[in-house]
Amino acid sequence: MNELPHDHAGGAGDVAVPPAAALPARLLCGPGPSNVPPRVLEALSRPIVGHLDPAFLAVMDEVSAMLRLVFGTANRATFPVSGTGSAGMEAALTNLLEPGDTAVVCVNGLFGERMCDVAHRCGADVVRVEAEWGRRVEPDAVADALTSHRGARVLAFVHAETSTGVESDAAAVCAAASAAAPDVLVVVDAVTSLGGTAVEVDAWGADVCYSGTQKCLAVPPGLAPITFGPRAVERVQTRRTAVQSWYFDLSLITGYLDERAYHHTAPVSMLAGLHEGLRIVLEEGLASRRDRHVRAGTRLQAVLEDRGYGLFAAPGARLPQLTTALVPAGIDAAEVRRRLLMERNLEIGAGVGAHATRMWRIGLMGENATDAVVDVLLDALPG
Amino acid sequence: MNELPHDHAGGAGDVAVPPAAALPARLLCGPGPSNVPPRVLEALSRPIVGHLDPAFLAVMDEVSAMLRLVFGTANRATFPVSGTGSAGMEAALTNLLEPGDTAVVCVNGLFGERMCDVAHRCGADVVRVEAEWGRRVEPDAVADALTSHRGARVLAFVHAETSTGVESDAAAVCAAASAAAPDVLVVVDAVTSLGGTAVEVDAWGADVCYSGTQKCLAVPPGLAPITFGPRAVERVQTRRTAVQSWYFDLSLITGYLDERAYHHTAPVSMLAGLHEGLRIVLEEGLASRRDRHVRAGTRLQAVLEDRGYGLFAAPGARLPQLTTALVPAGIDAAEVRRRLLMERNLEIGAGVGAHATRMWRIGLMGENATDAVVDVLLDALPG
Repeated sequence: MNELPHDHAGGAGDVAVPPAAALPARLLCGPGPSNVPPRVLEALSRPIVGHLDPAFLAVMDEVSAMLRLVFGTANRATFPVSGTGSAGMEAALTNLLEPGDTAVVCVNGLFGERMCDVAHRCGADVVRVEAEWGRRVEPDAVADALTSHRGARVLAFVHAETSTGVESDAAAVCAAASAAAPDVLVVVDAVTSLGGTAVEVDAWGADVCYSGTQKCLAVPPGLAPITFGPRAVERVQTRRTAVQSWYFDLSLITGYLDERAYHHTAPVSMLAGLHEGLRIVLEEGLASRRDRHVRAGTRLQAVLEDRGYGLFAAPGARLPQLTTALVPAGIDAAEVRRRLLMERNLEIGAGVGAHATRMWRIGLMGENATDAVVDVLLDALPG
Repeated sequence: MNELPHDHAGGAGDVAVPPAAALPARLLCGPGPSNVPPRVLEALSRPIVGHLDPAFLAVMDEVSAMLRLVFGTANRATFPVSGTGSAGMEAALTNLLEPGDTAVVCVNGLFGERMCDVAHRCGADVVRVEAEWGRRVEPDAVADALTSHRGARVLAFVHAETSTGVESDAAAVCAAASAAAPDVLVVVDAVTSLGGTAVEVDAWGADVCYSGTQKCLAVPPGLAPITFGPRAVERVQTRRTAVQSWYFDLSLITGYLDERAYHHTAPVSMLAGLHEGLRIVLEEGLASRRDRHVRAGTRLQAVLEDRGYGLFAAPGARLPQLTTALVPAGIDAAEVRRRLLMERNLEIGAGVGAHATRMWRIGLMGENATDAVVDVLLDALPG
């Protein structure tokens, strides 16, 4: 081993090492991540223990228990996937779908499109139920699609479309799906809703729901909370084919959670951060937290309309935690956004889709859903 | 939105919130994770910025540049996958393999087995080149397999087998593969070697190499550094079929790295931690760091042999950073391990495979490859 060459770095001082990262202090009012409270940052900085340590497994159990409360579910298979929100999407669809299955997917924005892409890569035949970006997919359209495609295995939709600021009527979509196709498994993307807008997995009758940590939960990005109901677990157990992803295979992950069998090395620090973040969410209470998001977002949207901004999301379907604002004529959306970041350390998000060049996406998520942050925004935004 | 029921948590105080996690301070001498230096923990605790923030993209570029040094490569496509080490394995194989491809996989431990599993889930025909656990796979056996299976698309092997403590002769395996099958792409698992044992991707002629952060790099688990060489990138670009994983699709990930196109939300805090961890690695120098691992591991192994322990890994193939020790008769391996954890806050790892019940896996990785830690172990271990 001593003989192996290693010419590119013979010892200290041979290599130019960059200086320590000096990240600016930003107010994060984009589509996520949102600012992280000091208690969570402190939890991230604690010395780590092993992923099979009894002390850590107890923390994991508490994380799962708290996630059940936040998701509104009694599902045993509730845990954080070791990846970002999109890893949650992939874990949900990869476990449920087999080649040749039909998946009905609601598409009214970027993340519905992404679900189609992921389902297609699982070998599924994808049936799209579309609505114009900025509008909800109608429950009747979901029922029609499921009636026209008997035997569809999955119905998937996005609860809170981060690309458009639209909230689906999740209860109605789930009810329509269940009535039209009792055996279809319903998958809900709650990346931008969980911890802000009410998510009620069991009351809705959803089978799988996933989220991300970096939106209304106010924990850094890197974990995807997910829950699988009994019908979903049974679907995975009775597959004809192996789950195409080893990393996201539910049966292997639950082996770690239930029997403490090693699967992959859990991201210990991130999980300590999520534990603290969930404690903060539950200390506040889900209803209080939801109301706080509603108050902040409603106020921002009302003032923006008064100032001549358009609101892209349809009335009655607007997420309080993510406002899609169409800037008045004469405002250079990209230039203002750049200046807010550089001159005020204030991040707001770019638009996506057809109206991207004149749209901002303004997040009031987690810690930032307050009057004080709305004041900062209203002071900073032109008009 | 105000009408949605949310009965399970109507407000603060309705729910029993667990106390803050109080993890014990352990000395982590298992197969990983290893202890994390305070500078890295501090970096994890810094306020975050957005994943598209210019300040963060500069940090990402520096992380990639430092990873190139650590991997010994000039490969542009060098970055951390947003998942743990096994996500690196999945990213490597999922991008390179298409259904019906032949993959030749070296198997001399658990992680070679896992590579077979992942390759199989990619639809590949898997050809195993086996060696007894505890021994190296011979380069001649690799050449024979590639000669017998003309047209094999991938040759994969584990550089540092975490299950057995065996180091492959990576240069020789790569050379044998290249001589026998010039077109085969070589994939190297360097999860337990990177930052401890020399990894020389370009000198070896390896096409893809991946690792994890939680071993010799001494950063918490949660990221999988990976590098794709030009032939691997071309293979991905000329696939007949889509990569079955959207999350791990190289072409989408490099769109973020190169063109700043949004793919998934990068795990900002973990990346800040990795940035600081790589700075520490390069400040020390790779050769110095490697020598430190050799010194610590060689000493531990010599003393254990003197005390009557067996060393499971074959002479000449022993990893210094991971010792697989066979306990003398009369020692209850599991009970000693449990007592070290509970009474001394000292974690050592359980064995795996046929000799699991009388084996320990003792890691001296990253910060822990020191005489002081060896002293602690020698004081604590019976015999």
